[in-house]
Amino acid sequence: MNPELLLSRIRVVLCRPSHPGNIGAAARAMKTMGLADLYLVEPKRFPDPEADVRATGAVDLLQQARVVASLDEALAGCVFAVGMSARQRDLGPPVGQPRETVSRLLSEAEQGAVALVFGNETVGLSNEEVLRCQAAVCIPTDPSFSSLNLGAAVQLMCYECRMTVFAERPPVPAQGVTPFTSPAATADEVEGFFRHLESVMRATGFLNPAQPGRLMPKLRRLFGRARLERDEVNILRGVLSATQNGTGHGHRG
Amino acid sequence: MNPELLLSRIRVVLCRPSHPGNIGAAARAMKTMGLADLYLVEPKRFPDPEADVRATGAVDLLQQARVVASLDEALAGCVFAVGMSARQRDLGPPVGQPRETVSRLLSEAEQGAVALVFGNETVGLSNEEVLRCQAAVCIPTDPSFSSLNLGAAVQLMCYECRMTVFAERPPVPAQGVTPFTSPAATADEVEGFFRHLESVMRATGFLNPAQPGRLMPKLRRLFGRARLERDEVNILRGVLSATQNGTGHGHRG
Repeated sequence: MNPELLLSRIRVVLCRPSHPGNIGAAARAMKTMGLADLYLVEPKRFPDPEADVRATGAVDLLQQARVVASLDEALAGCVFAVGMSARQRDLGPPVGQPRETVSRLLSEAEQGAVALVFGNETVGLSNEEVLRCQAAVCIPTDPSFSSLNLGAAVQLMCYECRMTVFAERPPVPAQGVTPFTSPAATADEVEGFFRHLESVMRATGFLNPAQPGRLMPKLRRLFGRARLERDEVNILRGVLSATQNGTGHGHRG
Repeated sequence: MNPELLLSRIRVVLCRPSHPGNIGAAARAMKTMGLADLYLVEPKRFPDPEADVRATGAVDLLQQARVVASLDEALAGCVFAVGMSARQRDLGPPVGQPRETVSRLLSEAEQGAVALVFGNETVGLSNEEVLRCQAAVCIPTDPSFSSLNLGAAVQLMCYECRMTVFAERPPVPAQGVTPFTSPAATADEVEGFFRHLESVMRATGFLNPAQPGRLMPKLRRLFGRARLERDEVNILRGVLSATQNGTGHGHRG
């Protein structure tokens, strides 16, 4: 199925969010990753100017957001739901890692609408809410500081959805610029440079032919790693020539 | 190398951030993923109460943050730096995807300090700044809305670092609760249940033995997928029994 279509089937459900700023941040996070369908279960303050400010260019998602009275309403029509849960619940679904869970979510989305369900900033999802979900996920924060912001959690999960649906290689924004390259130098051009370099090092006394040590091998290793371009060989030889004849012909280009 | 030690080698460098709230959000994002080393290049307003508010429990990172006058200062001692770039620059390093780039960053971190370099909210990194980095990365947002918040970008990259360093399975916070399970039902227990179910369906006329259709196979498929536990077989048979004799023995437990 078309990746954009699959992403459009994912609802983001925020249960009882306290801070309108987080609702705005969630909308912006969703839109950057190609999601659009936002459900709010009993938001404390919504609509709210603070939500609009944090949403910046994603205010359209806030305007289309559906405000509902219960998680059941938000999940109506969904074939699969994943609840965020910082901990395993006694009777809840097993808590998985983000990638494996998102993978499952997207395969279920082939069948119809699916949901990512986020709890309140302070108390998370209730046990009853988690039991409405067929899977649970814990974003693996540092155990010593697990205070992930709600908008940040939405951002991470939406990003995982986008990465997965595009098999880890989502298209990047149109680039315009083709990065500068010049043709690779041929082996004989590179050898010409090394001979030139060696002769300069000998002439200056930096390389003692009686005790060459590992100087040349080390320089070969360095330039080998860089895989020289023809243009660069010309520049480097220009530098060497300049040190030899002192005419100071500058580099052009 | 120890994953926590590797994470501690990653600097987050914010170049010329305009909004102190984003600095706070970046600190919180870093701390949730086990990073601690924050550098600020010419922040517009810092320290600032708004930064502290958005950092919540990560104010310690703000207090330890180093404010410097140039990217060079921020990168002093680093063996490798990755710059965020929404686009390819003419002479800049090739722009990679997050996962492959973070992989490289972490392998370089085995050698010493490394950096993730973020640009200003509006203008990003300058060409000169990107050229100070050995690699560039673009977070693959939806091309039609690429307005990723700075704090959100920091969150995503720090998360990728954590996921990669723990080979996609970072430990989740201490759980406390072991999820409820009961032993799996044996095949004969499951068959006993199916016989029981079928007899109830026949007795009630729901299943017509002359035209059974695919009712039983469908029920077998359903319960097969669930992989029944012994406890659940007992409950289901209790329900069936209750419908048969109307004694209404309730479920205990």
